[in-house]
Amino acid sequence: MTTVKETSRLESFSDGVFGFAITLLVLDIHVPTVSEGQDLLNLLMADWATYLSFLIGFFTILVCWINHHYMFDHIYKNNSKLLLLNGFKLLVVTFTPFATALISKYINTPQQSTAVSVYAFNFALMGTAMFFIWLYAVRMDLMKHESEALLKMITRYYFLATAMSVTIFILSFINIWICLGFSGIMFATFLFPEQMMAYAMRVLSARK
Amino acid sequence: MTTVKETSRLESFSDGVFGFAITLLVLDIHVPTVSEGQDLLNLLMADWATYLSFLIGFFTILVCWINHHYMFDHIYKNNSKLLLLNGFKLLVVTFTPFATALISKYINTPQQSTAVSVYAFNFALMGTAMFFIWLYAVRMDLMKHESEALLKMITRYYFLATAMSVTIFILSFINIWICLGFSGIMFATFLFPEQMMAYAMRVLSARK
Amino acid sequence: MTTVKETSRLESFSDGVFGFAITLLVLDIHVPTVSEGQDLLNLLMADWATYLSFLIGFFTILVCWINHHYMFDHIYKNNSKLLLLNGFKLLVVTFTPFATALISKYINTPQQSTAVSVYAFNFALMGTAMFFIWLYAVRMDLMKHESEALLKMITRYYFLATAMSVTIFILSFINIWICLGFSGIMFATFLFPEQMMAYAMRVLSARK
Amino acid sequence: MTTVKETSRLESFSDGVFGFAITLLVLDIHVPTVSEGQDLLNLLMADWATYLSFLIGFFTILVCWINHHYMFDHIYKNNSKLLLLNGFKLLVVTFTPFATALISKYINTPQQSTAVSVYAFNFALMGTAMFFIWLYAVRMDLMKHESEALLKMITRYYFLATAMSVTIFILSFINIWICLGFSGIMFATFLFPEQMMAYAMRVLSARK
Repeated sequence: MTTVKETSRLESFSDGVFGFAITLLVLDIHVPTVSEGQDLLNLLMADWATYLSFLIGFFTILVCWINHHYMFDHIYKNNSKLLLLNGFKLLVVTFTPFATALISKYINTPQQSTAVSVYAFNFALMGTAMFFIWLYAVRMDLMKHESEALLKMITRYYFLATAMSVTIFILSFINIWICLGFSGIMFATFLFPEQMMAYAMRVLSARK
Repeated sequence: MTTVKETSRLESFSDGVFGFAITLLVLDIHVPTVSEGQDLLNLLMADWATYLSFLIGFFTILVCWINHHYMFDHIYKNNSKLLLLNGFKLLVVTFTPFATALISKYINTPQQSTAVSVYAFNFALMGTAMFFIWLYAVRMDLMKHESEALLKMITRYYFLATAMSVTIFILSFINIWICLGFSGIMFATFLFPEQMMAYAMRVLSARK
Repeated sequence: MTTVKETSRLESFSDGVFGFAITLLVLDIHVPTVSEGQDLLNLLMADWATYLSFLIGFFTILVCWINHHYMFDHIYKNNSKLLLLNGFKLLVVTFTPFATALISKYINTPQQSTAVSVYAFNFALMGTAMFFIWLYAVRMDLMKHESEALLKMITRYYFLATAMSVTIFILSFINIWICLGFSGIMFATFLFPEQMMAYAMRVLSARK
Repeated sequence: MTTVKETSRLESFSDGVFGFAITLLVLDIHVPTVSEGQDLLNLLMADWATYLSFLIGFFTILVCWINHHYMFDHIYKNNSKLLLLNGFKLLVVTFTPFATALISKYINTPQQSTAVSVYAFNFALMGTAMFFIWLYAVRMDLMKHESEALLKMITRYYFLATAMSVTIFILSFINIWICLGFSGIMFATFLFPEQMMAYAMRVLSARK
C-alpha cells in the first residue's frame, strides 16, 4: 500500500514563510551614513551587533526549517488541526525578525537583557510548537509506516528541544552571554537531525 | 479515469502571495527607542495594539489560506476566469497588511472605528471572493468527481462566510469590540473546514 | 512518447518573483497620520492616487503572470538561454513596484507625464520580453507537440502584445489618461489568453 | 533502478530565498522628491548608480540561481550536511541586497572602494559556497548516475568560479572598475553552464 503525501501544500506554504522570514532579516542591516572624517569600513565594523543578530536570526530560522523538513519527511497525512499547529509555528517564525531586531538594537546597552529575553521567549515557543506538531502527528498516526522505535526516539529528541529552549529562556534572565552560548549548543544539537537519530538508533540496537 | 490536477501552478503562486503577505505583517512591529529613565519591557508592553493587530492580521490570512487549501483540494480543472477570480482574492490578501497597520495605529484613538471599518471591508471582500471562486468552480464543474451532497454543503458553508464577513463589516459601524469579537467567532467557524464538513455530512445522513 | 516537463523549477522560481513583487506593492500604501481636526476617512480618500497605482501595479503583474502561466503550459523543454530570457522578464517584473510608486507620488502633479512614461517604458519591456520568450521557444522547438496553427496564432497574439505595449509607451508622451485607458484595453485583451486563442482557432477553422 | 529526487524541498526553499532576495533589491530604489524648478527625469537620470547596482545585484543573484539550478539537476540525494552547506550559500544570497545597497550609496564617493570590497567579499563567499556544495555532493556520491568525465569537468568549472570570485575580491582593492568589469566576464562565463559543459565535453572527446 502506498501512502500518498498529503502535506505537500502545507510544506510549500511553510517553505514560503520560512524563506521570506529568513530573507527579511537583511532589511535590519542599515547602510550607514559616512560623515566627514569618518571611514566606511570603521562604521561597518562598529555595527558588529547587527551582523551578530543577523547570524543569530538566520541560524534560528535555518535550524527550525531543517527540523521542519525532517519531521515532514515522516508525516504523510494531513488534517485541519495539523494546519493550525503548523500555523502557530509559522506565527513564531514570522515574529523572529522582530526579536532579532531587538537584539541588534539593544545588545551592549542597559536594556540588553530584556531584548534577549524576548528573543529567548520566541525561541522557547518555537521549540514547544515543534514538539507539539510532532506529538500530534504521532498520536493521530499521520505517519508513513515507520518503526515504533524510531518514532519514540524522535519524540524524545523534540522533547529535548522544548526543554533546551525553555532553559534558554530561563538563562536569559541570569546572564545573556551564557544564554546565547547555550543557544549555540542547541543549534549544534539540532543542525543534523538525521545523523543524530541514525546514531541514536545504532546505540539503541547495540545495547540490546 | 484519473483527473490530472491542473491547478498546481495557481496554488503555488497563491501560496507565495499568502506566505509573503503573512510575513510582511512583522514589518509593522517597530523596535521602540528607549529614552533615559524608560524601560524597554514597559515600552514593549505599551505596544499591545501592535501585537493585537499582528495577531488579527496573521489569523485573517491563515484562515483564508486554510480555506483556500480546502477548496483547491476539490478543484482540479483550471481556466483563465478562475485565475482572474483567484487574482481578485489575492488582491484582497495583499491589501491585508495595510488594513491591519491601520488598526495598529488607530485603535484606542478617536479614529478607531474608521480603521476597523476599513479592515472589515477588506474582510468582507475576502469572504465574498472565496464564495465566488467556489460558486464558479461548481457551476463550471471544475471538480474532481465528488458527491453532489458534499459540494452543496460546501457551497452553503462559503455562503455563510460571505454573510458573516458582511455582518462584520456592518458591525464595525456599531461597535468595534463587538465587531472584533464576532470576527473571532468567524475564525473559529472557518479554522477547521474539513472537520466542519465531515460533521455536517454525518448530521445530514443521520436525518435521512 | 511522453515529454517530461523540464521547466518546473523555472516556473516555481518565477512564481516566487511574481508573488513577491505583487505583494511588495502594498508597502507603498502608507498609513496616514491624522492631525487634530482631521478625519481618517477623508485622509484615506484623499490618497486615491495611491490605491489607483496599487491597482495598476497589481493588474500589470497579474496579467503578466497569467500569460507567463499560459506560455509555459506549452513550453516543456528548457535550456540556459531560456533561463536568461526569462531572467530578463523577471528583472522587469521586479522593477514594477518602483514604476508604480512613481505614478502614485507624481500623478496630478506637473511631473506626472514623466512618471507615467517610466511606467509605460517598463510595460513595453515587459510585453517585448514576453514575445521574445515565446519566439525563442517556438524557434528552438521547446514545445510539447502542438498544432502548428495554434503555435502561429499564439506568436501573433504576443506580437500584438509587443505592439500594444510600445504604443502605450508612445501614448504616454501625448496624454497620460489616454495612455492609462489604452493600458486598460490591453489588460482586457490579455486577461484571458486561453479563451482568446480558442476563439481565434474557431474563427480560423470556420474560414476554411 | 530509478533514483527518487530527494532534494525537491531543498530546491523549493532555495527558490523562495533566491526569488525573495532578488525582488527585495527594488526596495533600494527610492522615489526622488522633486523640489521647485527641478525635473523628475533629470533626478531619475542622476540616480544612475542606483540602477547600476540594482542590475549588478539582479545579475549576481540570477547567475547564482542558474548555477544552483544546474547543480541540482545532477544532485538527487540529500542529507543534513548538504542542507547546512546550502544554508550557508543562502546566507550569502540574503546578504546580497545589503552589499548592493552599499555600492548604490557609495559609488563615486571616496568610500567607493570599501563598498565594492564588501560586495566582492560577499561574491567570493558565494563562489566558494557553490564549489563546496558541488564538491561535497560528488564526494558523497549524491548524484544520479552520470558519466565520471562530466562530473570531473563540472568540478573544474566550479573551482574556476571560486578562483575567479576570489580574484574579483582581490581586484576590488586595486581598481573598482577593473573589478566590476571582471565581474562582468565572470557573469558571462557562468550564465550558460549547460552549453559551457556540453562544449567542454565535445572538446574533450575530440582530443581523444
